[in-house]
Amino acid sequence: MVNIAVMGYGTVGSGVVEVINTNGAIINKRAGNEINVKYVLDIRDFPGDPIQEKIVHDVDVIINDPDVQIVVEVMGGIEPAYTFVKRCLEAGKSVATSNKALVAKHGAELLSIARDRDINFLFEASVGGGIPIIRALNSCITADEIEEITGILNGTTNYMLTKMFYEGADYDEVLKEAQDNGYAERNPEADVEGYDACRKIAILSSLISGQQVDFEDIYTEGITKITKKDMMYAKAMDMTIKLLASSKRHDDHLHAIVAPALLGREHPLYNVNGVFNAVFVHGNVLGDAMFYGSGAGKLPTASAVVADVVDEAKHLHRNIMTMWDEEKLSLLPIEDTCKRFFVRVRGTAEERKAEIEEAFGPVQIISIPELKDEFGFVTSTMTEREYQKNAEKFADIIHMIRVED
Amino acid sequence: MVNIAVMGYGTVGSGVVEVINTNGAIINKRAGNEINVKYVLDIRDFPGDPIQEKIVHDVDVIINDPDVQIVVEVMGGIEPAYTFVKRCLEAGKSVATSNKALVAKHGAELLSIARDRDINFLFEASVGGGIPIIRALNSCITADEIEEITGILNGTTNYMLTKMFYEGADYDEVLKEAQDNGYAERNPEADVEGYDACRKIAILSSLISGQQVDFEDIYTEGITKITKKDMMYAKAMDMTIKLLASSKRHDDHLHAIVAPALLGREHPLYNVNGVFNAVFVHGNVLGDAMFYGSGAGKLPTASAVVADVVDEAKHLHRNIMTMWDEEKLSLLPIEDTCKRFFVRVRGTAEERKAEIEEAFGPVQIISIPELKDEFGFVTSTMTEREYQKNAEKFADIIHMIRVED
Repeated sequence: MVNIAVMGYGTVGSGVVEVINTNGAIINKRAGNEINVKYVLDIRDFPGDPIQEKIVHDVDVIINDPDVQIVVEVMGGIEPAYTFVKRCLEAGKSVATSNKALVAKHGAELLSIARDRDINFLFEASVGGGIPIIRALNSCITADEIEEITGILNGTTNYMLTKMFYEGADYDEVLKEAQDNGYAERNPEADVEGYDACRKIAILSSLISGQQVDFEDIYTEGITKITKKDMMYAKAMDMTIKLLASSKRHDDHLHAIVAPALLGREHPLYNVNGVFNAVFVHGNVLGDAMFYGSGAGKLPTASAVVADVVDEAKHLHRNIMTMWDEEKLSLLPIEDTCKRFFVRVRGTAEERKAEIEEAFGPVQIISIPELKDEFGFVTSTMTEREYQKNAEKFADIIHMIRVED
Repeated sequence: MVNIAVMGYGTVGSGVVEVINTNGAIINKRAGNEINVKYVLDIRDFPGDPIQEKIVHDVDVIINDPDVQIVVEVMGGIEPAYTFVKRCLEAGKSVATSNKALVAKHGAELLSIARDRDINFLFEASVGGGIPIIRALNSCITADEIEEITGILNGTTNYMLTKMFYEGADYDEVLKEAQDNGYAERNPEADVEGYDACRKIAILSSLISGQQVDFEDIYTEGITKITKKDMMYAKAMDMTIKLLASSKRHDDHLHAIVAPALLGREHPLYNVNGVFNAVFVHGNVLGDAMFYGSGAGKLPTASAVVADVVDEAKHLHRNIMTMWDEEKLSLLPIEDTCKRFFVRVRGTAEERKAEIEEAFGPVQIISIPELKDEFGFVTSTMTEREYQKNAEKFADIIHMIRVED
């Protein structure tokens, strides 16, 4: 029997217990051992709930019990999660977590403690919910240099952008609706400003580079400025707008960015709608691959956490996770990256095309019949530096959105 | 150093050598050991090619060399591959293969030999080329009961159906074009009759059920009867036609089938076009997931084979693959499975709707203005047995295609 402790009995924690109860027989068969939930750590009590008999309020009960071999951390946030996880690892217990903030900030250190003790620190659920993208990078796509990872990593914003695209709704409407039906939090900042996606792409970037990518270094732009009018232009171009979190290799450098982007129909991420997440991967021999699934939600997230528990039960005294060094990776500055840019300006194309092309070079004009006093254009490929330099000449740029080619 | 031997220096075999040469540094890091190609078995010689110094013509050189720990089998076909692989495993060497025919027929036995010897028999490349679907089922989605796997598992037919859908071309035209540009073989039977997809879904069905699913038991219908007119109806219904290979759980039974199916836009496989493959998976706690990538081709297939080699190098004396028993699984007979059916008949809907609804119950009529002397209808959900019984009353059914809901 392998005894586990679950730290945090919120949505994901109760999901973990539910998944183990529901699929116990097949999970035990795959783990080659019986998985038993011995403790659940929570500050609350759950009188009347069968979980109550396993509830403990003191993390030391878990840390000091030599029978506990695996600890699930699903409390979220940096503290006390970081202190608890570190102490568990130092006590020789493998840890499985869904905590992206913890992994993005302290992943390198926690992986290194686990490796030193021949145990495991796994975090499949921290990126892409139920999509097995961490395991895909760690144990599946092992013959390739990964040249690109681009993902739709936040379900809330993808739900909102999908509604805006298909229903022509405006940002404030869909945010309110998403909040009303529980897809967005009352304080939606972490989602709509791109902070959540940023931590996730930092984790993926660290994994593929083998070095620490600090999320603070990643240029991050949310969806708060995307409007109904932007979506009208997207449709006119037969494109859509998605919040992409992306990490691309340029020679020896990685370029990481979180920002809304215009995507064409032929892009594998074009059709990823609603609360679904997906991750596109390009390997130098594999070519293109994509992984798609539920990026959040109680049971999909718990499914990923329990898959980590199964792996840890199968490898109780054997480290299986790719490390990344604590040494920090310098990302390619955004100014040096190349893209096409979609830009909306005031006036009409007839009046202004010459002036715009003088600054930006040849552009493709997009006019929307319903929008009389503005139009859009798409530049050819240039660096962000060139774009910014050219854009400074125009005081009336309404909005710029990058184009993902 | 881990010495490997490659049996077969055809497209995939030379790809394996190329991938190891190209990405050697990162592959060795992930394997935790240097991977060295010691022998290449082929009946041919390759004078002037650097590979020549590794060429051997006698499999016994490989089997009798205790330094060879991993053997890659990429010859294809049942014999002599089966005999060679079995002898390698019995000699204590792990085997990685891309050979779907071998795995579908002898997988259970070869897995059992590997388990008895604490070595591995891996076959990631046998299904879905570079898509890591075998590893996803074996080591990623381990907390779930898999309730459905539905895949586009054959790139040749998907290329043809994509051309027929988007370009309105007819079957013979696209087959000829696919043959001319190397996407289809001169004898295309294995692809267009669905035999290739059938072996692949047999492997996936065996893996998720843990028992032997014989490919001969799977109802298999190819794409040879799909016409330009069928695609016109699909478009009119805002659907497309794909060759689906599917395995679904109904209570304690699996139902497996390979057949063309009408798919709606909201289905994750709708947009899988060209030579790409994809596998849709539904887990009881994970929900929906999809894996997408290059289903064939020299380097994507070699990428999957080399990933198996990396896993085998990491687990030289430890069996990591889920077994399936040799005991045969009885599939749910196709007659007992339920679907909606799209049917084309002669005449006009006005004249014939009453007669059709008397037999099939309420139907949805689809008429195509260009097709004056025929029309189509979609039944409500019924068993194949009921459909067949009703269809017997009509001598003039032009074509029936199942609808995937």
